[in-house]
Amino acid sequence: MDSLPLNDAQFLLPSSVMPDYSIGVDMGGTNLRIAAISTDGQLLEKITLGVKVTMGRDYVIGEMCDAIHRLTEQYRATGRFVGAGIGVPGIIEMETGMMRKSANLPGWSDYPVRDVIEGRLGAKVFLDNDANVAALGEKWLGAGRDANNLAMLTLGTGIGGAIVLGGKLFYGMSGMAGEFGHVTVVPDGVQCGCGNRGCAERYASATAIVRMAREAIESGEAPELAKAASADPEFSAKSIYNLAIQGDAAAQRIFQRFGEVLGILLADLVNILDLDMFVIGGGVVSAWDAFAPKMFAELRERSLVYAASAPEDPLAKKEGASAQIANYTRKKTIITRALLGSDAGLYGAARIPATQ
Amino acid sequence: MDSLPLNDAQFLLPSSVMPDYSIGVDMGGTNLRIAAISTDGQLLEKITLGVKVTMGRDYVIGEMCDAIHRLTEQYRATGRFVGAGIGVPGIIEMETGMMRKSANLPGWSDYPVRDVIEGRLGAKVFLDNDANVAALGEKWLGAGRDANNLAMLTLGTGIGGAIVLGGKLFYGMSGMAGEFGHVTVVPDGVQCGCGNRGCAERYASATAIVRMAREAIESGEAPELAKAASADPEFSAKSIYNLAIQGDAAAQRIFQRFGEVLGILLADLVNILDLDMFVIGGGVVSAWDAFAPKMFAELRERSLVYAASAPEDPLAKKEGASAQIANYTRKKTIITRALLGSDAGLYGAARIPATQ
Repeated sequence: MDSLPLNDAQFLLPSSVMPDYSIGVDMGGTNLRIAAISTDGQLLEKITLGVKVTMGRDYVIGEMCDAIHRLTEQYRATGRFVGAGIGVPGIIEMETGMMRKSANLPGWSDYPVRDVIEGRLGAKVFLDNDANVAALGEKWLGAGRDANNLAMLTLGTGIGGAIVLGGKLFYGMSGMAGEFGHVTVVPDGVQCGCGNRGCAERYASATAIVRMAREAIESGEAPELAKAASADPEFSAKSIYNLAIQGDAAAQRIFQRFGEVLGILLADLVNILDLDMFVIGGGVVSAWDAFAPKMFAELRERSLVYAASAPEDPLAKKEGASAQIANYTRKKTIITRALLGSDAGLYGAARIPATQ
Repeated sequence: MDSLPLNDAQFLLPSSVMPDYSIGVDMGGTNLRIAAISTDGQLLEKITLGVKVTMGRDYVIGEMCDAIHRLTEQYRATGRFVGAGIGVPGIIEMETGMMRKSANLPGWSDYPVRDVIEGRLGAKVFLDNDANVAALGEKWLGAGRDANNLAMLTLGTGIGGAIVLGGKLFYGMSGMAGEFGHVTVVPDGVQCGCGNRGCAERYASATAIVRMAREAIESGEAPELAKAASADPEFSAKSIYNLAIQGDAAAQRIFQRFGEVLGILLADLVNILDLDMFVIGGGVVSAWDAFAPKMFAELRERSLVYAASAPEDPLAKKEGASAQIANYTRKKTIITRALLGSDAGLYGAARIPATQ
């Protein structure tokens, strides 16, 4: 035994030392992604299928279960399979695992998704919405590793939101806590699909960037945006961002407005929740340099709780109550970008079965 | 022993069956109130002193400690004294029990209030801010008895706020969670002492009612308000309320605006927190009939989470996302008036030592 090389010695370890693993699934709008992730946070394998949720319930569930089977076969020798977590773009009734109606999932309403998948897999399955699993992922392995209380804002077609308290998701009474995108920021503002007017996500999302650009074009005051829109059939937030960083004033104004509204929303959230950290993720976060300066300026100006906690700018306010309580604590509210990008949801979904 | 009357039999009970009690103190702006309250929630005795916090730190603390001594002497035979809780109109650093600067408490800044009072009483003392102790009181014995997760809004000179989760106060990172009064409701609105503009409490507080009335008088469109203001040197929210219920349109518009802003604030809170219950207290709540209808109308219109939970009006929204998820849960968000009036803080303050 003395001469046994170190590499071989590893195989003598009992199998219980091999890490257990779970499956995380991200049912995004563009792809269906399935990953095997060890309970200590290592990605074992990720499968990306060109399956859209719009291809229909039975097809999506079939492809998902096949891929999960392949992964559990592949890694059965690695460790114990502890279950699957699935992040879905919709509202889940937590007790029953039923999917409720969602604009993005035609045909899935009032369908017992969890029971069906559990039946096909013969394993424990957990469903949660995509904003929640992204927050869990960032808490576990991303920006929120060291924060026990945090909120996450996912800037995409809308604004997803989630609250983590004491390291666990906070669901609220009906599982709907964290609807940050529908906080009223402009009381007489743009109509929202939720029935309200002036919701934050009507000004601070990818959809909102394109809408504001089209309005600027119609006003006749955005010639470069007009040119880009007519040249590009997929005129998107990214094209508008590119114009903004090239110095186009009309495109920059859009990101200023985006940052202003996001800053007001953050100020509200900091004043209400006083959490350690607010993590900002989602596709639009890549435009950070175009909107973040205005976002921070609004936040500093509008949140007495942030002003009291933020040591980087102790002299920013010399008047009023916030000056009186400025820096009464040395803790700092952290506003930061997400770290895991589009994988946050995969990791977070895989985290659920490992922690139940 | 058979003939012993029931009344006398009580005296044979061991003293441990007699209820323990604590002292609750409410350091309000007008009075200093001290109560002995049994740990099962019975008021034993309440002392109201005409001592204002503005009479100075040492005087207030002296009077407070004298009254507490009188009560603990009086009830020493009743049961064990478990400590004193004090609700203060300012921000407390929880770890150290230091009072931080507060506009309402000149001379109290950076003063070790808790240590000083503990030294004089020789007993455990707990400090918390007035909004928090009011919420604890309503949770213990008032409107929130059956709600584990609730928020309380105290409508007075400003808007106080507190969040109770799992039956306990949620403090946030710096003890500042629940600053509902400084949520931005009108982005370009009235300047607030906190440094922000358009804070909710600039439109939905007693101070705001008087300000809006004076603005209406200056505009020349409020003759009845003008008459009342010149006749009454203490022209107050109550006088304006009286005109509103007598049918004066200008006074009614003020309470409409009040209800609108409070409804927007509540919609934001319900969307963010999805709590079981929101309790509305404070002096201005007595104007409920003048502002509540508008408040509920805004809330229904603006919160998809409230619309999804509120069964009383299932057809209110036929368009958009909130229609799709309407009534997916049978639980109902409860918005209700506080029950304990100005005693909520006394009971809540007494509750703290009993639960530590």
